Formats: sequence, C-alpha cells, structure tokens
Amino acid sequence: MNKQALIQSIRTKKSFLCIGLDSDITKLPPHLLKEEDPIFEFNKQIIDATRDYCVAYKPNSAFYEAQGAKGWQALEKTVAYIGYSHFVIMDAKRGDIGNTAEQYAKAFFENMNCDAVTLSPYMGGDSILPFTKYADKFAVVLALTSNATATEFQISKHEKEISLFEKVVAASYKWGSDDNIMFVVGATKTDYLKQIRNLAPGHFLLVPGVGTQGGSLEEVARFGLNRDIGLLVNVSRQILFASNEADFASKAAEVAHNYQQEMSKYL
Amino acid sequence: MNKQALIQSIRTKKSFLCIGLDSDITKLPPHLLKEEDPIFEFNKQIIDATRDYCVAYKPNSAFYEAQGAKGWQALEKTVAYIGYSHFVIMDAKRGDIGNTAEQYAKAFFENMNCDAVTLSPYMGGDSILPFTKYADKFAVVLALTSNATATEFQISKHEKEISLFEKVVAASYKWGSDDNIMFVVGATKTDYLKQIRNLAPGHFLLVPGVGTQGGSLEEVARFGLNRDIGLLVNVSRQILFASNEADFASKAAEVAHNYQQEMSKYL
Repeated sequence: MNKQALIQSIRTKKSFLCIGLDSDITKLPPHLLKEEDPIFEFNKQIIDATRDYCVAYKPNSAFYEAQGAKGWQALEKTVAYIGYSHFVIMDAKRGDIGNTAEQYAKAFFENMNCDAVTLSPYMGGDSILPFTKYADKFAVVLALTSNATATEFQISKHEKEISLFEKVVAASYKWGSDDNIMFVVGATKTDYLKQIRNLAPGHFLLVPGVGTQGGSLEEVARFGLNRDIGLLVNVSRQILFASNEADFASKAAEVAHNYQQEMSKYL
Repeated sequence: MNKQALIQSIRTKKSFLCIGLDSDITKLPPHLLKEEDPIFEFNKQIIDATRDYCVAYKPNSAFYEAQGAKGWQALEKTVAYIGYSHFVIMDAKRGDIGNTAEQYAKAFFENMNCDAVTLSPYMGGDSILPFTKYADKFAVVLALTSNATATEFQISKHEKEISLFEKVVAASYKWGSDDNIMFVVGATKTDYLKQIRNLAPGHFLLVPGVGTQGGSLEEVARFGLNRDIGLLVNVSRQILFASNEADFASKAAEVAHNYQQEMSKYL
C-alpha cells in the first residue's frame, strides 16, 4: 500500500488507528487455548471485530518468536488474514548490516508482503537502505521511542549537542523520502513530537504510547497531524486485552470504535 | 555457559574463534539443495568440521527468518545440534521495550537455550535488562559496528561531544557487569577498539569484520585481548563459503584451522 492509498483509507474511515497485535499467549482468554493455533484464532477474531475502525495492524514479532516455529506460522497466517485492505506494519525493530538487512526485507516484504517494518537506526543507513529499495513499502525508523529509558541515548543531555533522534531524522533524507520512510515517535513525549514534525513535515509518524502507556490522543493529534494526515496512532494492549472472557472481541471493538470516534473529530 | 567456562574453553582450544552461521540458502553448495532441510544439513556439516577450532557459533537470525517457519526450525535444530560444548550467540540485534524484550529473551534464552544474544541499545536499558536477568547468559550490546555507515551515529562528528558508542559502554554499567554483558566492536575500527578496551577493561568483546570485511586479526588481538582473554573474533562468510563444492566442509575446516593457529600465537 503506498502513501496515497493509506491517506485515502484514513479519510474514508475517519480513523488513523493502528492496532498492535502484541498477542501474548499468556494473556489470551483461556477458552482459546484449546484451539489448535490460539494466537492466530485470537488475532482472527480481533481483526474481524476491529477492521472497520482501524487502517493498520502492527504485529509485534517478539510475541510470535517466543512460540518458536509455530509462532512464526501464526505470524504469517495473521499477515495473510489481514490482507490488502489494511496497512501492515511488522514491528520487528531489526537493524543490521546490508547483506543481513536484505534478508530481513525478504522475510517481511517478500515472503509476508507487509507494507512496512520498524527498524533501528543504530548502525546507520546500511540497515535502512535495503528496505527503502522496495516500491510502495516503508521503513519505519525509530526516532524517539515511548519507553522510559529512551532518553538514555535518543535525547541529548548537553545543551549544545544535537540529539540522536534529530540526527536520525536528518540522516533519513539520505535514505529515502516521506514516500518510503516513517518515524516512530512516542506519544509520551509530545514536546518532541512538535520538534520532529518540524524536522519531518511530510512524513507519516507512527505513534505508540497512547492507552496503557498514558499518552494523550488529543495532544498527539494536535502536534502530529499534517495536511496529508501524516499520523498513525498505535494502541495494543488496551484493545487486545479489553476483556479476558468470551466477549473479548466485542470489547476490543468497543475500545477501537471509541478511538475511531475521537479520531474523527481531529480529522 | 558462564564467563569462566568460556575462558577455560578458549585456553584449552587455544582459539577465540567464533563462526558466524550466516547460512544464506542462495550460497549453499548446490548438491545440498536436494536435502529436506538444506540449511540445517549445511550447518551440521560445517559444525562437525570446525568444532575443534572454534569456541563459539553465531547463527544470524535473518538468514533463517528469510526462509519462514521452516527457517526458524532450521535455526532451532542448529542451536540444539551445537549443544553445550560451545558458546552460542544468537545474532538477532533485537531491541525493544521491556515487555517485548522479555519475549525475545524467552525465544532465545529459554526455548533455544542460547548463551548470548546481540542487542541494539538505541532504546536504552529497557531493551537490555530483560536479558541480563538470566544467570550465565550474556547481552551482547552493539557498541561500534564494523559496517561503513556505523559512523553516522555511533561516532560523534563534533570534538566536544561524547560518542554514542562511549555513552553505550558507560551506560552498560547500570545494566550489568562483565559477567553478563559483552560488546560488539568492529575489527575495521582498531583505534576505537583500544578506546573501548579502556572503557571496558574486563568485558568480552565480540569482534566481527575480520575476513571478508578486511579487518586484521593481529591488530584486533593486540588491542582487544585482556588478562582474561576477553575476546571473541567472528568470521562468517570466509569460512562458510570457502568452497561451493562437495568439499565445502573440509575447506571451511582449513580456514578455521588457520585462524585457530594464528590465534594460538596471540594467547
């Protein structure tokens, strides 16, 4: 899915919601554990119930890898089940030298046909360029993440120093454009969101941290939206685990619907 | 395997060689492609032929993920086949928030029983701490990598700025000690190797970049070795793909043996 199609999907649905499929097997409703593939069954029901309220899904590879080869299969099946109607971001945070990065790109862009992969920029452009080579696909580069220790390296402690996240955004113009690069910017850091929006006026920002992590959707929308929308807000646990009972999918849909309703006001 | 056992193994074998299992299916000897699991068969023969000359193996997860669930199985089988005699480093370069990092730790430390995982420090200690919690296991943190664009962020361009790799090494003392943390330092950057050795006198350094990437083993040994050895030098492609014919394993053994012979001189 290219940028224009993503923008169109957001305008049609009046939603810039991305649902994170952090499908932790230990948190699934117990009745699903008797299924042959509990994680896929869970995802399937979550996807069926929330499709209309979101434009993107973001499976988190760790929760699948923790289940071994069977987990990897559940991941492949999940991406295939989502299909072409939604933008699929593999939250893998990979980052390695060129010949290795090419293999990750093959895994996620060719074999699974994801639209985007989250990437760590620590090793520089070598880790990103194998992904920006693909047409209509995105490298979603970590800029300023939502977690507590993000500030250890990403934000500079010294006044005269340029922060690492600013260096990353600046360097990204060598790697690609807003047609094939997005940035991860945590909702818990809205001051910086404003700053990144200035550095990257045309890029989509993928914003985690709303929901369980405490970020405000209203503030994220105020500082993050640009004239082409340019914003995907991710919610994971608050939707996935809204209920631990038989009604988990309808409860997830309720939370997703509430987000969509609030988002429609900001568009 | 804990640090003392690793040191003992190096002293016994007079080798600090780590063999990187970047088992690219497109580079395997053609006669193996008729096997049911060509990657595992290749690894098995490489491992059998080189066991005596190295102390560690380092499978690179990307080359397995690129083959889907079957690739993941080949990865699991490979780690199991290596067994307890060697130190196993999963070269996965993961890095995510705490609850996700825990899942990666489960995948590689619990399910596969690897001894170490390479990790990206971009997101700070949250990404590392779930790994240092495990006894007798190591977080191998990217400090200064061997690739060309490593300098984009890892090394500072401004004289008065502390380089990111130095910040990472300094911060690691909050995450753990030389009993559960190692650093990746590229062999192509020996000046910095000296600097990191000063910052981390007791830590093991995992040094890629000797071989195909052109780093000098002699220089790496000079600047990298400490009183407890503290050095693992990784060679991947030069050993794995020494021959593309039926003799690939014996040719790999020859190259590995040569490295072991040279290493024995420096110990």
